[in-house]
Amino acid sequence: MFKERKTKITSDFWQRYRKLMANSSIPFQWDMINDNKKIIISNDAFAAEGTADKSHAIANLKIAAGREKGKFFGMDFQDTDVYKWLESAAYVLSYAPNKKLREETDSVVDLIADAQENDGYLSTMFQIEMPERKFKRLQQSHELYSMGHYIEAGVAYYEVTGNEKALKIAEKMADCINKHFGLQENQIPGIPGHPEIELALARLYEVTKNERYLKLAKYFITQRGQDTEFFDRQNKLDGKGRNFFPGLDKIGNRYYFADKPVTEQVDVHGHAVRVLYFCTGLAHIARLTKDQALMQAANRLWKDTVKKQMYITGNVGQTTTGEAFTYDYDLPNDTDYGETCASVAMVLFAKQMLLSDLNGQYGDIIEKELFNGALSGIALDGKHYFYVNPLEADPKASKKNPGKNHINTKRSSWFACACCPSNITRLLSSVDRYLYSIKDNTILSDQFIANETNFDNGVSIRLTTDYPWEGKLSYVISNSQEVKFNFAIRIPQWALGDYHIIVNGQRVDVKLQKQLFILPITDKITNITVDFGMDVHLVRANNRVKDDMGKVAVQRGPIIYCAEESDNKAPLWNYRLKSNPKFTSNYDSQLLDGVVVLDTDDAERMAEDSEQQLYYFVDDTPGWSQSHLRLIPYYAWANRDNGQMEVWLNKR
Amino acid sequence: MFKERKTKITSDFWQRYRKLMANSSIPFQWDMINDNKKIIISNDAFAAEGTADKSHAIANLKIAAGREKGKFFGMDFQDTDVYKWLESAAYVLSYAPNKKLREETDSVVDLIADAQENDGYLSTMFQIEMPERKFKRLQQSHELYSMGHYIEAGVAYYEVTGNEKALKIAEKMADCINKHFGLQENQIPGIPGHPEIELALARLYEVTKNERYLKLAKYFITQRGQDTEFFDRQNKLDGKGRNFFPGLDKIGNRYYFADKPVTEQVDVHGHAVRVLYFCTGLAHIARLTKDQALMQAANRLWKDTVKKQMYITGNVGQTTTGEAFTYDYDLPNDTDYGETCASVAMVLFAKQMLLSDLNGQYGDIIEKELFNGALSGIALDGKHYFYVNPLEADPKASKKNPGKNHINTKRSSWFACACCPSNITRLLSSVDRYLYSIKDNTILSDQFIANETNFDNGVSIRLTTDYPWEGKLSYVISNSQEVKFNFAIRIPQWALGDYHIIVNGQRVDVKLQKQLFILPITDKITNITVDFGMDVHLVRANNRVKDDMGKVAVQRGPIIYCAEESDNKAPLWNYRLKSNPKFTSNYDSQLLDGVVVLDTDDAERMAEDSEQQLYYFVDDTPGWSQSHLRLIPYYAWANRDNGQMEVWLNKR
Repeated sequence: MFKERKTKITSDFWQRYRKLMANSSIPFQWDMINDNKKIIISNDAFAAEGTADKSHAIANLKIAAGREKGKFFGMDFQDTDVYKWLESAAYVLSYAPNKKLREETDSVVDLIADAQENDGYLSTMFQIEMPERKFKRLQQSHELYSMGHYIEAGVAYYEVTGNEKALKIAEKMADCINKHFGLQENQIPGIPGHPEIELALARLYEVTKNERYLKLAKYFITQRGQDTEFFDRQNKLDGKGRNFFPGLDKIGNRYYFADKPVTEQVDVHGHAVRVLYFCTGLAHIARLTKDQALMQAANRLWKDTVKKQMYITGNVGQTTTGEAFTYDYDLPNDTDYGETCASVAMVLFAKQMLLSDLNGQYGDIIEKELFNGALSGIALDGKHYFYVNPLEADPKASKKNPGKNHINTKRSSWFACACCPSNITRLLSSVDRYLYSIKDNTILSDQFIANETNFDNGVSIRLTTDYPWEGKLSYVISNSQEVKFNFAIRIPQWALGDYHIIVNGQRVDVKLQKQLFILPITDKITNITVDFGMDVHLVRANNRVKDDMGKVAVQRGPIIYCAEESDNKAPLWNYRLKSNPKFTSNYDSQLLDGVVVLDTDDAERMAEDSEQQLYYFVDDTPGWSQSHLRLIPYYAWANRDNGQMEVWLNKR
Repeated sequence: MFKERKTKITSDFWQRYRKLMANSSIPFQWDMINDNKKIIISNDAFAAEGTADKSHAIANLKIAAGREKGKFFGMDFQDTDVYKWLESAAYVLSYAPNKKLREETDSVVDLIADAQENDGYLSTMFQIEMPERKFKRLQQSHELYSMGHYIEAGVAYYEVTGNEKALKIAEKMADCINKHFGLQENQIPGIPGHPEIELALARLYEVTKNERYLKLAKYFITQRGQDTEFFDRQNKLDGKGRNFFPGLDKIGNRYYFADKPVTEQVDVHGHAVRVLYFCTGLAHIARLTKDQALMQAANRLWKDTVKKQMYITGNVGQTTTGEAFTYDYDLPNDTDYGETCASVAMVLFAKQMLLSDLNGQYGDIIEKELFNGALSGIALDGKHYFYVNPLEADPKASKKNPGKNHINTKRSSWFACACCPSNITRLLSSVDRYLYSIKDNTILSDQFIANETNFDNGVSIRLTTDYPWEGKLSYVISNSQEVKFNFAIRIPQWALGDYHIIVNGQRVDVKLQKQLFILPITDKITNITVDFGMDVHLVRANNRVKDDMGKVAVQRGPIIYCAEESDNKAPLWNYRLKSNPKFTSNYDSQLLDGVVVLDTDDAERMAEDSEQQLYYFVDDTPGWSQSHLRLIPYYAWANRDNGQMEVWLNKR
């Protein structure tokens, strides 16, 4: 009943980011993928010995299209840097029409069409360098991953611009994959090493309603983990010493989340982005096919991720070794990985779960990522990015302890494996897609981003709020045609102890269902005000988490705070908070492009020991003196001086 | 004036270890190096894909000697497993004569002599597989390291048994090296990638008084870091792709402690064992040559190591990446390396410093290693060893977090790089060498191991004590010939606040010099009793050490304690000590081959959180309940069930 909608985002916070995408990030990334500027890669595990001083992503497509001559350069999934840029640009065009950008995106679509082979195949490395090896080493080839990303981009671009060529390319790709993969004779009974195609095919199905794509997506979901010898068999046939990534042939199926069928999986493990992209597709396909076993699996994996393996900022993936999950309750702060892409994937996963089950827990995670873990992946200038998002950083440790040198303490302009920049931009340019979730006759206000949205059935919603800095939400719901529906509002988990709701001037006593306030709408105009208490909270971790014992994080609204050396004295670990510290919260428009900073005098600092002695009897401990401590939002760290940062603080 | 001495160790604690060496470790290691038993390597970074199921160390020598046919197997320093076994066996023969062992050691000397080339060269990998590459890739070849270890063994074996052949082999090696290395024309103006030859040549000089060896040792000390292009130049000539260890050609001179001359070095860095072996040679040569600049360098590096980069157990080397030091005050407990060999090297380094300067600080470190960091490297059965010695361990973390899987939570019987087993045995079988240090006319009782020692000038010392479990030392000094000398006793840093001394029944007021009590001896019989307070101490780290903030370690006498899952409930991090906890100390002869265990009821344990939620507001924190906590000596951990262990404990 709510089919189409037009949304205008009015939030100051998000307006800034949307302009940033349009005016800074998208043009910057265009320059990167076109090699218009020299790329300087700093401290990147994937950039061995200066081998990544360029992107070459557009150039690869031009060579594959026969427009230029040359050799392929980059990762076997280098094409995706173009596709994700195209997807980001599509979202930008939806709110910031721009002739020049539109020419660029159309030209990219034309280029991709030219590069695509007649049968729909597109993966420039194989086309240029090794056509005989197509689909022959799926464990590492990223062919389906790359085409999946194109399909996402093509669908998005078609949705925004109506460019049918873009959609046609996607359909041709899907048809090519459909022809080659499956359990029929003459098909490859295989799966991709890196999931992505599953969620892409589900999106393509939703646009085209072509059942073939749904079936194919389900095949990839259910086939995973069935034939645990598939990769080894393919690798053997492809030949020894032909790895695209060293060691990936020996790492085992667990790493690929292909150790058993998903219906038997009980936890997330292996490469974080792989498993989370897979879970996104899983949840999507489970919903589309109403497959209960798949939905139960999605639920199990969701719970394991968010209740046992997620940092308080929303970051996931605890180890740099293989960019992977480790195990339940293992959440080291200074060696974690927390890849930006994994946080983006969490948003995608959460959204699919939410569409099956209107429940506040999913929006809580989307919110966590949008204001913390994912957002940390991009600098305030839109042109610098984190691949890794630690909860504790020290430039000296990153430089001098090899176990921590995956942790950059300044964002980089690009990476040899440049997956994160365009992933965070495609998320930030599409936040409008996360405002509402609709199921049956209920429309849920899930993300509290000030907006005006008109639905095609005459319903319009205006949300006015200074969220995330203030906790007051004012809704005006216009329903001129008196459509009967329920309006739901997520009550964030952090606000459950302190919120109130006023409907048309009357305070209402609320009984939440699945963390949602649900109101049947009958009037032509309904005014709802929700007030979340914005007290500063100290948060602790479950005591199964070793690394957070005795420590607290500070949260205000949805924002997780951190201490930074720019505001406080190093070393930061020599501070501790008193019990029940009082914080003042002030919005400072000049600081970090506008943030609420938290200040407290209820902190103490230990006098520094001399350099003369390394160990002391405890009687000989320096005193603590009252001290000021300033905290800023986690997402905004590392935008000033290069220094220490801590989310988890000592507490008296 | 005190030239030779005969020592009998009477300490129960060390008698047990000396019998263990003689009856268990040495026969076991003999079986290992002879491949009498199948070797099972578990979780060893150096054992790639089961390539290390044997030692082959004796076999390599037999092949080089022409006694057998076959191919070389193992590390390029595999020979040293034989040499360090021989050195250990020599020390064992000094206190436990054994005909069978003597036959084995003599036969090994004969074998080594046969394997040695006419010009003195011996390194079986090069002799068997690549004679044309001798001394051509010193950065990685370990040839001088290997010969250095033989020289140490040969000197020790000659000293104990008088076997001149053993010494002759060493001299021939040194002559070979002397011929090839140096700044003369036709010599290699180079240094070894792995120091060891320096300290070995110094030992050889002390036995032979041949100035050539002293000069050669000094050359290696002073040449290091002078020509920073030497390794690269040699590698280039030797040819690309001919590394003995992947990546070691690119790691840079810093790793080899060859980035600048030692007189300009200000801190220890790079591979821990390399730099500490080098420092041992440095201190030795500085003393022998009275070179002040070298002595100052040794002092600087000593201070940096023990005051800024040493774990409280004496372990050193903070990172598994390159088995290396990281930086000052970086002392992570659950990812550290703390190689057993590095702790052995610390003892060697300390002893050389001590011989230049009778000062209590050096014996403090020897004691720390003997009772903690080094001793942890061997199981109570003498047949299992730690390569890595963490201060915090969790079998689950070691298994599932790749950043911690270098940490074994059970000792292994052998390693592909089997340097540690024979290193800890050569230390433990030679503790008698650490009892006394003599300088000018002062004899210092440095290590408090009960013993009876007769010097050749008629002086004899009997020390009766139950150290380390009890703090009372009773000395009887007999001086029948009324030699005039000073007797000094080290007052350990941990006892400085609580000790008293009685000389011939009279309590004496003590003024310490460099942490030493010094008494001129004139009587024929002198009785001295020293009483160290054996209170249990809580120790904290300098607050520049991030990872120990808010935590305490527990020490009694020289012993550092730890909590183990065998005695306490996991997770161990849910315990905390109250302020001023009272401990009871009881010697339990049945536990862990006899240890003083510490028990306290002044601990609290937090009730475990549910699995339903990962983060909570701090108001919602489970209560603490009074709890019992039991601690055992750190050196004895991992001799029971496989479980968690913690040295640093939370404190209220």
